[in-house]
Amino acid sequence: MSAPVITLTTDFGHDDPYVGAMCGAILTLAPEAKLVDISHGVPPHDIRAGAFTLASAAPYFPAGTVHLAVVDPGVGTARRGLVAETGRFFFVGPDNGLFTAVFEREPPRAIHAIERLEYGLSPIHPTFHGRDLFGPIAARLAAGTLRPAELGPAIADPVRLHPPRPAGAEGGTLELPVLHVDRFGNVTLALHEDELRGRALPNALTVAGAEIPLRRTYGELPAGTLLALWGSAGHLELAVCEGNAADRLGVSPGALVSVRLS
Amino acid sequence: MSAPVITLTTDFGHDDPYVGAMCGAILTLAPEAKLVDISHGVPPHDIRAGAFTLASAAPYFPAGTVHLAVVDPGVGTARRGLVAETGRFFFVGPDNGLFTAVFEREPPRAIHAIERLEYGLSPIHPTFHGRDLFGPIAARLAAGTLRPAELGPAIADPVRLHPPRPAGAEGGTLELPVLHVDRFGNVTLALHEDELRGRALPNALTVAGAEIPLRRTYGELPAGTLLALWGSAGHLELAVCEGNAADRLGVSPGALVSVRLS
Amino acid sequence: MSAPVITLTTDFGHDDPYVGAMCGAILTLAPEAKLVDISHGVPPHDIRAGAFTLASAAPYFPAGTVHLAVVDPGVGTARRGLVAETGRFFFVGPDNGLFTAVFEREPPRAIHAIERLEYGLSPIHPTFHGRDLFGPIAARLAAGTLRPAELGPAIADPVRLHPPRPAGAEGGTLELPVLHVDRFGNVTLALHEDELRGRALPNALTVAGAEIPLRRTYGELPAGTLLALWGSAGHLELAVCEGNAADRLGVSPGALVSVRLS
Repeated sequence: MSAPVITLTTDFGHDDPYVGAMCGAILTLAPEAKLVDISHGVPPHDIRAGAFTLASAAPYFPAGTVHLAVVDPGVGTARRGLVAETGRFFFVGPDNGLFTAVFEREPPRAIHAIERLEYGLSPIHPTFHGRDLFGPIAARLAAGTLRPAELGPAIADPVRLHPPRPAGAEGGTLELPVLHVDRFGNVTLALHEDELRGRALPNALTVAGAEIPLRRTYGELPAGTLLALWGSAGHLELAVCEGNAADRLGVSPGALVSVRLS
Repeated sequence: MSAPVITLTTDFGHDDPYVGAMCGAILTLAPEAKLVDISHGVPPHDIRAGAFTLASAAPYFPAGTVHLAVVDPGVGTARRGLVAETGRFFFVGPDNGLFTAVFEREPPRAIHAIERLEYGLSPIHPTFHGRDLFGPIAARLAAGTLRPAELGPAIADPVRLHPPRPAGAEGGTLELPVLHVDRFGNVTLALHEDELRGRALPNALTVAGAEIPLRRTYGELPAGTLLALWGSAGHLELAVCEGNAADRLGVSPGALVSVRLS
Repeated sequence: MSAPVITLTTDFGHDDPYVGAMCGAILTLAPEAKLVDISHGVPPHDIRAGAFTLASAAPYFPAGTVHLAVVDPGVGTARRGLVAETGRFFFVGPDNGLFTAVFEREPPRAIHAIERLEYGLSPIHPTFHGRDLFGPIAARLAAGTLRPAELGPAIADPVRLHPPRPAGAEGGTLELPVLHVDRFGNVTLALHEDELRGRALPNALTVAGAEIPLRRTYGELPAGTLLALWGSAGHLELAVCEGNAADRLGVSPGALVSVRLS
């Protein structure tokens, strides 16, 4: 059998010792595990961004993967921790909405609250559950030495974020929230192609009052052209060929972009 | 037996090819090794910051781990290299004080100077001992094909940094150096809880003239509140709930913060 | 046999979910593979910088390594993909010049175009061939379940960048393009020591009109001194002891530096 995979999605950044300490705690309990970073660059405390990041990458991992996610501004307070099983994956982290988006793609069969703290390190520091509680639990799940039901009772009410949704009239102009701006300045909007199922896709959109073409990929038009496309995670995306659409449009996550689909 | 773990702590950053070249050199000699980043974001040439980072994460790794650390402004000059054994771990890197803090937590049983250069690559480039000397030695230690005593004579005088210490009267106002500011703006001060052993902990501190509460974790108070707590590595830490304490206080590593404990 | 190594060189950055999704796709097909980052910090769309980064690190990896490189502004357009075999390594990525520099050090024995898309995921998203095509192909090569000739016809005309070359009179003043500026501010120039083979090396250079010493390494002179040396990948390099040469000289990649060798 292959080594179990544990993915890591956090807002810890790459410069501080936090990721290293968490990996050390994991490997102590699951020496065979293969640790793979999804991202440690989630903006600090930004649960919504962490949810987007996790949901965009987690589904591509092999069955059996344990996805550990820690964006946890409430660490050490009364907020719950959870472990979810989806049949393909385990998810471990704080119950603060971080798994909202990925649970839409990978619906859990069971979710358990984390109440039995003895599966963490001893002591558990109240500011670092990634290292002292969630990491060790992810390790034990990966190593096969812990079943979720041992951690606490099943729960049916995990915290869910209300994802940003388009506002506006059907078929008319939509006000689409910006979900994400990536390193290239590509702008992901809160409209998934599944939401258009059965409707014709337009060949052009009107964005912020200007008509722009809808294409398949970035390099189809001359450098500097603003275009729209369906991004690799299925959302409507605005891009500039060899340029930066976020800079061009002056938008960042949470902003609204007016889009007329046809 | 599990694959041996080699951790990496450097000031190489993530953008240049240096980390990759070093990992390649290691895997050539220790193909089974599991490489885990502690951090490559130590500020360039900042031995003190590297020492803090290494000491904060290294103790959490499994027994048998080889900790390779390279923050090495004197690379290729007459400064020594060293290998230390602590019973649990090996440490490999330049003898410039980088191991000062971790040796306080993990006292070495033996330290050997690196004099036998034939355990490195051939040739050894004078600007890149991480790739050409320390990395290969860490690999051979992890693979079990090299014992530290083969590298050179035992030494009793490794370079030690003088760690920043509080100044001021016992029980009165202390001038505490800032050890570290993390990604969240949390400010780690040079006072470890062990240094207070036997003394009562106050419920509040006076920091820069204002009284602030001492709490267990970040989220216990309303957003924007400045508070103190004992951080996850045991140091006194200043934080702002859902905010940035370093910005609030206008401090960075090396600054002094006036703290009155009671 | 050891687990196969797959290295990753991209311009994806560390904050977005792209690296994670690509790693997940790889591990699904090659669960035993060991994934090692060379760099994800190549500047967006900068093929030339990606070529430099890959060539600086790839040769240090063990024989059998699969080097996956994706800096791909033309993703999803008519540009080809390729797989190259050098005897020691496989290289996988877009045929846009990204392998120019590494092929000078590791000449390919055979290069095949990627025409058989069924070795990728299904569907292949036109904006993310790293995850959906090149990653899966790298995984299959590493796992030993695919031979390059199965992917498409042999090609003899991979795209090659014209590397920046010195201009100027032999023995006189050269105009040397800046290839790279690293995190420390060290300036790599487009002159490799191999190009001087048989000529005497000068003890000093005249750079931008001022004479500076040629030394072996950074720490040989007082802090703040500008010096030249032969860098760890063999290029002429300008550095400031405990300082930042790029800031001192006001240069960035692509700039020209006047150097008189003797």
